[in-house]
Amino acid sequence: MSGFNFYHPMEVRYGDIDAQGHLNNASFLTFFEQARIQYLVHLGLFDPQHSFMEVGVIVADIHIAYRKPVLWGAPIQVGVRTSKLGNKSMIVSQVVADAKSGDIYAEGEVVLVTFDYKTNASMPIPAAWREKIQAFESLEDRH
Amino acid sequence: MSGFNFYHPMEVRYGDIDAQGHLNNASFLTFFEQARIQYLVHLGLFDPQHSFMEVGVIVADIHIAYRKPVLWGAPIQVGVRTSKLGNKSMIVSQVVADAKSGDIYAEGEVVLVTFDYKTNASMPIPAAWREKIQAFESLEDRH
Amino acid sequence: MSGFNFYHPMEVRYGDIDAQGHLNNASFLTFFEQARIQYLVHLGLFDPQHSFMEVGVIVADIHIAYRKPVLWGAPIQVGVRTSKLGNKSMIVSQVVADAKSGDIYAEGEVVLVTFDYKTNASMPIPAAWREKIQAFESLEDRH
Amino acid sequence: MSGFNFYHPMEVRYGDIDAQGHLNNASFLTFFEQARIQYLVHLGLFDPQHSFMEVGVIVADIHIAYRKPVLWGAPIQVGVRTSKLGNKSMIVSQVVADAKSGDIYAEGEVVLVTFDYKTNASMPIPAAWREKIQAFESLEDRH
Repeated sequence: MSGFNFYHPMEVRYGDIDAQGHLNNASFLTFFEQARIQYLVHLGLFDPQHSFMEVGVIVADIHIAYRKPVLWGAPIQVGVRTSKLGNKSMIVSQVVADAKSGDIYAEGEVVLVTFDYKTNASMPIPAAWREKIQAFESLEDRH
Repeated sequence: MSGFNFYHPMEVRYGDIDAQGHLNNASFLTFFEQARIQYLVHLGLFDPQHSFMEVGVIVADIHIAYRKPVLWGAPIQVGVRTSKLGNKSMIVSQVVADAKSGDIYAEGEVVLVTFDYKTNASMPIPAAWREKIQAFESLEDRH
Repeated sequence: MSGFNFYHPMEVRYGDIDAQGHLNNASFLTFFEQARIQYLVHLGLFDPQHSFMEVGVIVADIHIAYRKPVLWGAPIQVGVRTSKLGNKSMIVSQVVADAKSGDIYAEGEVVLVTFDYKTNASMPIPAAWREKIQAFESLEDRH
Repeated sequence: MSGFNFYHPMEVRYGDIDAQGHLNNASFLTFFEQARIQYLVHLGLFDPQHSFMEVGVIVADIHIAYRKPVLWGAPIQVGVRTSKLGNKSMIVSQVVADAKSGDIYAEGEVVLVTFDYKTNASMPIPAAWREKIQAFESLEDRH
């Protein structure tokens, strides 16, 4: 379970568990989403005091592979890593892992597009975002 | 924010927030529910390794009063207290509070009925439950 | 199952069902909420093309009594009725019922407060709302 | 919006809408899931009277591309098509579309693995399932 500089712990709620007794497949995306936002807060890219209407990031594409079922009470941590910075989009790799055993429950990639709500169009990733993410992830500037 | 011997901290997820930017009214019940289960685990009344099909507790009635809107990032803790033990039912008082300011966001009462899944009928609260809850809550035996 | 001039049919989703195989207690409030909004649309009090940020209605209090468990596939309809119009608040009675058998799965009351987002304070129920609701529900003006 | 022999209409609930006013990315998977189950019921492969514990189908992998935001009130229909039948797995193609305009809001592929809960292991797709799906989808037997 290496390769992630940021993990966010998450609690499996009874309300996340489906009729088969496991974390529901849709709930994994809720876990991904919450950890991504906490990652942006951690990097100083999003101030939770501001409205979510100002967050110019749109989810364009998600791939997720489910490896093992998650039970209520499992000590989950969700890894987040920006694996690619494009011009107007970025790829975020994510993993739902067991904080004790290190087991991987699910892993995936999320394509985010930076969006300007004022002009209602996609926009280049802001320079400040690019710098902070590159520094945090030790990414080279290849866009 | 006194009167609770048990609090469970909970994270407000982006997925809990509705179009008006606040914790959705239904999500409060998800917070209540998760904290109730953690309360039962804390008292040794429910082993999360077992199936939820064995938990003989049915929600019969809920009253909740919403005091203040909850925003993403609020440091929530949910208080749980058994306030009355009947013969086949119990009343659990709950509060959604701010762990820092002590502000109350919502409070309510949940009526739980003990249920025997084998006979498919309500059943008296088991003696072991009664003793543990009375001891934890300093409740007198008035049923 | 009389006493409601408005029913909204709702589909029980797999995602609404919890680990015990029933419609989750929190999901009932999601059913209540969706049917309330459809009721407001039906009465011409809310235009869904507008933002939900303009709907000046805040949920202040909910009481719900659970009568019978709801299974996936149950033909649900949710009844909505304004049972009392106050000055700055109204009480909405709701029921989750079986559209075929008429069985009541749950019933409750929701207290709504009219709210002015511009002044950030509660406000009297607009006259237009009052008239339309009184006409639809054959309510007398007793406030 | 051709290529689907099965569509299931779904209602966008207020509870599905997130703080940015759109159908949340995780909720799309709830829409996919509900329509897949209705597809199985339609083909006679799942009897909703039975427990979901008997449905030996596990979600192994999902890819979803988000094309356009979905607003509350949008007339959604979800298309479901089995696009490939393997030995122990199948690929289901899905689309979230507008029933009026035909616009595609999201599309994706879901890999399902047939699972025997008694032996707790993956199992070949039952012959009865294979025949019914091939007939419904006009799929050739290529496994």
